[in-house]
Amino acid sequence: MTNDVVAVANRSIDRLVAKKAYDCYFPLHEPLQADLTNIDDSELNEREKLKKHWATMRQFFKFQPLSLIRSYMGEKVAFYFALCGFYNKMLIPPALIGFIIFIYGISSVFSDQPTSDICGRLGQETFMCPRCDKTCPFWKLSDSCFQSKVSYVFDNAATVIFAVLMSLWARWFIEFWKRRQAVLRYDWDSMGFEEHLEPIRPEFEIKAKKKGEERVNAVTGIKEPYVSTRTRLPFFLVAASVVLFMMAIVCTTVFATIVYRSRMDFILKNTSAKSYSPIIITVTSAIMNLICSVILSQFYYWIARKLTDLELHKYQSKYDDSLTIKIYLFQFVNFYSSLFYIAFFKGRFFAYPSKYNTSSSGSFTEQCDPAGCLVELSIQFIIIMIGKQIINNLIEFFYAMRRTLTRMCFKRSEPEAQQQWEKDNELYDFTSNTLTDEYLELVIQFGFVTLFVAAFPLAPLFALFNNIIEIRLDAWKFLSKYKRPIPFKAFDIGIWSDIISSISYFAVLTNGIVIAWTSEFIPKMAYRSIESTGGSLNGYLNWTLSSFNISDYNLTGTMPQEVPDNLTICRYRDFREPNGPHYSQTSMYWNVLAARLAFIIVFEHAVFFIIYLMDWLVPDVPQTIQNKINHERYIDQYERWASKTTEKNFKHAAIASEAIFKMANPLSGKRKDPINEDENSSKHSRNLKT
Amino acid sequence: MTNDVVAVANRSIDRLVAKKAYDCYFPLHEPLQADLTNIDDSELNEREKLKKHWATMRQFFKFQPLSLIRSYMGEKVAFYFALCGFYNKMLIPPALIGFIIFIYGISSVFSDQPTSDICGRLGQETFMCPRCDKTCPFWKLSDSCFQSKVSYVFDNAATVIFAVLMSLWARWFIEFWKRRQAVLRYDWDSMGFEEHLEPIRPEFEIKAKKKGEERVNAVTGIKEPYVSTRTRLPFFLVAASVVLFMMAIVCTTVFATIVYRSRMDFILKNTSAKSYSPIIITVTSAIMNLICSVILSQFYYWIARKLTDLELHKYQSKYDDSLTIKIYLFQFVNFYSSLFYIAFFKGRFFAYPSKYNTSSSGSFTEQCDPAGCLVELSIQFIIIMIGKQIINNLIEFFYAMRRTLTRMCFKRSEPEAQQQWEKDNELYDFTSNTLTDEYLELVIQFGFVTLFVAAFPLAPLFALFNNIIEIRLDAWKFLSKYKRPIPFKAFDIGIWSDIISSISYFAVLTNGIVIAWTSEFIPKMAYRSIESTGGSLNGYLNWTLSSFNISDYNLTGTMPQEVPDNLTICRYRDFREPNGPHYSQTSMYWNVLAARLAFIIVFEHAVFFIIYLMDWLVPDVPQTIQNKINHERYIDQYERWASKTTEKNFKHAAIASEAIFKMANPLSGKRKDPINEDENSSKHSRNLKT
Repeated sequence: MTNDVVAVANRSIDRLVAKKAYDCYFPLHEPLQADLTNIDDSELNEREKLKKHWATMRQFFKFQPLSLIRSYMGEKVAFYFALCGFYNKMLIPPALIGFIIFIYGISSVFSDQPTSDICGRLGQETFMCPRCDKTCPFWKLSDSCFQSKVSYVFDNAATVIFAVLMSLWARWFIEFWKRRQAVLRYDWDSMGFEEHLEPIRPEFEIKAKKKGEERVNAVTGIKEPYVSTRTRLPFFLVAASVVLFMMAIVCTTVFATIVYRSRMDFILKNTSAKSYSPIIITVTSAIMNLICSVILSQFYYWIARKLTDLELHKYQSKYDDSLTIKIYLFQFVNFYSSLFYIAFFKGRFFAYPSKYNTSSSGSFTEQCDPAGCLVELSIQFIIIMIGKQIINNLIEFFYAMRRTLTRMCFKRSEPEAQQQWEKDNELYDFTSNTLTDEYLELVIQFGFVTLFVAAFPLAPLFALFNNIIEIRLDAWKFLSKYKRPIPFKAFDIGIWSDIISSISYFAVLTNGIVIAWTSEFIPKMAYRSIESTGGSLNGYLNWTLSSFNISDYNLTGTMPQEVPDNLTICRYRDFREPNGPHYSQTSMYWNVLAARLAFIIVFEHAVFFIIYLMDWLVPDVPQTIQNKINHERYIDQYERWASKTTEKNFKHAAIASEAIFKMANPLSGKRKDPINEDENSSKHSRNLKT
Repeated sequence: MTNDVVAVANRSIDRLVAKKAYDCYFPLHEPLQADLTNIDDSELNEREKLKKHWATMRQFFKFQPLSLIRSYMGEKVAFYFALCGFYNKMLIPPALIGFIIFIYGISSVFSDQPTSDICGRLGQETFMCPRCDKTCPFWKLSDSCFQSKVSYVFDNAATVIFAVLMSLWARWFIEFWKRRQAVLRYDWDSMGFEEHLEPIRPEFEIKAKKKGEERVNAVTGIKEPYVSTRTRLPFFLVAASVVLFMMAIVCTTVFATIVYRSRMDFILKNTSAKSYSPIIITVTSAIMNLICSVILSQFYYWIARKLTDLELHKYQSKYDDSLTIKIYLFQFVNFYSSLFYIAFFKGRFFAYPSKYNTSSSGSFTEQCDPAGCLVELSIQFIIIMIGKQIINNLIEFFYAMRRTLTRMCFKRSEPEAQQQWEKDNELYDFTSNTLTDEYLELVIQFGFVTLFVAAFPLAPLFALFNNIIEIRLDAWKFLSKYKRPIPFKAFDIGIWSDIISSISYFAVLTNGIVIAWTSEFIPKMAYRSIESTGGSLNGYLNWTLSSFNISDYNLTGTMPQEVPDNLTICRYRDFREPNGPHYSQTSMYWNVLAARLAFIIVFEHAVFFIIYLMDWLVPDVPQTIQNKINHERYIDQYERWASKTTEKNFKHAAIASEAIFKMANPLSGKRKDPINEDENSSKHSRNLKT
């Protein structure tokens, strides 16, 4: 059955379902036997083969039987699994390198000079300024000994190399996926997939008919309901602003959590719950975050769907693309905004002690640890990535199992000799969102693996472990818990490849900024080249800390309650003059800042140059496949020109075209053939001038 | 006559020419009447029509008759003229805006504070440090009054906006050219242009046959001589290194000229020719430059051709592409390197007075004018762009006229009743280089208009004037002075669109750097926001000049010969501490440096974001054309599936394919059809795993 016949059939059934003549419609699954272990493959049907060889954790190390998946569930689903498989294969090298870098970091942590300074005598003797004015105590530098060790593990010279590699990897991923996709497209005969065969959405047809405009489809020559871009434009603008507004709200909740944390810290310090304060704060803020995220997501999904409905898309694929972008943008902010805050802003608004509550810095006066800002980014990264991934996988599993579980709980007896359609009717619907959610999960994870990988080199390894389970879990779900999907034809992964491509570009920026801005790489380089003798990091720690005269607390009336004996100066992390009253930034501050910015520029240009070169050298379609395509075209052409029926064929074509055109416009008999007319007119109008 | 018949014919004639059986071959021009003014168009042949309506300066304001050009000289030439016309049309808005910005600069020059400082009392009272140690005199700031005025005209707030606009314009140019090209391609039936119909180069055939390897062409199934990529790779590497080496040599000559200038300046200062020194230096260095450029070019072109021969390209188009890139890279360095030097390096190696001859700064201690570095970039830009363009046009004209001129000089009598082929034989050959040279000129000019346009907003206007003449000059040349070109089919402008695309990306970087690094925009911004009250530039000039204690010249023994009375300090352009002995850079120096780098980052990301968005929103093929293409495919498909002869056609195709394959491999009768075999094997090997 060709695609357009399916399309027409679907369209009619859709109408009947809309009129409630039918409840629903779905393709039937093949029957499944309970135990497949001892049966020979030749006696199994496709579903059983897939179940035995694919949808089980026992086969996790094997390649997927893509052609079987395609034949059972269609190209659209098969492309998703092909992407998963390809992604896993591509993840192996970064997972290994990341692991090696992690091991290197751990093994060399004890030879790191700044770490031993913090944990050693210097750390014991150095008093740091309080983390807030008035109420907070002075503290010893050695208190952050543990953080400094963690920091070194994630923030050493190897991390920079890893960041460069991962920036390139992200781009390689999408470049080589394009090649893989071209191969699959050829193998699956999706080359000449015609978009115009896609049926018009019934919703569009109904609304457009109400407006009454009609226009001849320029491709098929058939009259179709039409809505002008001008009518649709305002809805696009509304949609864009609502999406931006919702993204802003998500950002606000993230910042609200930050403010809540620092305020609660301040409040709890003065109560009897003082010693439990870290736990209370972490738990309450995590719960707050989760509630916000869930409520906002539900609301947002609802509003995104409404907005996309209003945009009046003619084809389901465009509708899905528009909805996908909306959902992705929202989830992007939802997942990554706290990481962006820590990587780029945390500790940047801090002036100097005694200035915590001045208006210019407001409530965002959180400081980074003396060991560096990267350690906090790493911790947040681990919490979000691994935490959310585990939660998601659990939710997915229990969601898929919920009917089975309910049945188990209520011990309903199952009638034995059920028909296949009765069995399938009890399964979950396979809608277009089912696949969107799976893609979303994968792409969000891809973002974790590429955008902030410099903060946590083990991310690719964790992602790999997660995905190995994920593929088999999805396979099991689609085969056993969902209705069989309508086998839609597809020739690529659609809008997702654009999204992955955007992330891969964006990853170059974020990695450059994390290395230059968040990590200690540049200050260390500056110290080695300017201050140090022989390139050692002796005295580096001391160099990064500025001094504050404790007596200057009196100028703003923010003197801490307890001052250790004989303490006249305390230290804080910044490059400022050692004497007041202004504590202006030193020349070294600007020097390091310039070096950071210069690094970003050099990093980006070097990486983008390599990417550009690679794009240019590696064709999107492998040469062997291109040759096959050209060969087929060659044979086709040869046949057309060599055959003696050529002239007859031409006449056929002309008659057919005429017939189609007449079919579409029964009244306009006098008009000329639209192709020739268009061609001629365009030729005339364009070629005489210019 | 279809393309492949032409190809085979050419190939055979080429062989005969190579064996000297023929002298040469060329298509004949149509005869040309002397006076066309009073004859009706209907009585003119194509050449006469083109001569009357196109190849004359009288018609410079008219669009070009592209379809006529195509029908007389082929698609390849027509695409060149289409690009010229499109480029001119696109140049109109920047030419206008640039002109307005230039007028704005001139009209507001007298209200500029720094300029009136330099030309006024401050300039009179301020003594600047000598431009070299020992021999040079102290000089008054007011000496650079004129430069400061010129500087302001090219370096004001409007320039920044212009730089942003031109960076976007460069990208728009290539994006919209792609659309224009798609339209032309459709109108000229170049859609299904098949590359495999291109004949194999005879040179390749001969050399490859010597090596004896043969391989079946995967597209046509015909056995062909073959040279493996592995054999060719070393030659590519050699070619790349030679090209880089030659580029380095060109850079060296540019720097040599700079060293020569500063040394000559130093030498002539002590001789009696002192007062003529600027003229002597300028003239001799210009002559040096010209000689180097001409000799190097000739040598380089020769070596580039040899290298490309060694690369053993199978097809002429690949050969031309490879040669084109080599020549372009060379000319890029040749034309732009002095501009890059001035924009990015001049004045950056200067330490402070009394340090002119220290080893670290070497001979590159040229300083920028107190008015800023941009003024020198502007002057150099004007000299190179306009000077070289005028020289090139004159050379082109006289080259085309040289036979006519020789004839006129020697007064040879022309025999009257010549045959057309005799007449044409006296004309110049139209080789593949003829068009390459024309493209090169256009693309080099495009580089001037985009890469350094911030230094000279009138560049687009001058380019427009030049091109209006250029088009008609080329038209006249091709119609009257060259043999009629063999009408090659083409479906785009080839490698040139990649080159233009690269320039357009590169232009974003250079414009960003020129604004941030070369112009006074950032220091002025910094002064307004940090030092000044109310954002005025009062005192800005004083702020940019550092002080030097004249007595410190004694430390290095470089005291100038004449010191004005009572002068204890002199000024120079930098941000350094006012007191010795180290004159280290102030905090402000690093502050401004950081601001400059931050501007580059922001500028690039903003512009590239807009470009990325635009790429995504504007399709490469206009919707109307895409609809027509889809419509044709639809009709084609409809006919194939609807026609009752479908099955018969399939059989034909199978037989044809079989026949072709057998023709190519007479011995391998037992082998299966290669298409099906390939398909199956690839399907099997790929789909079972993955």
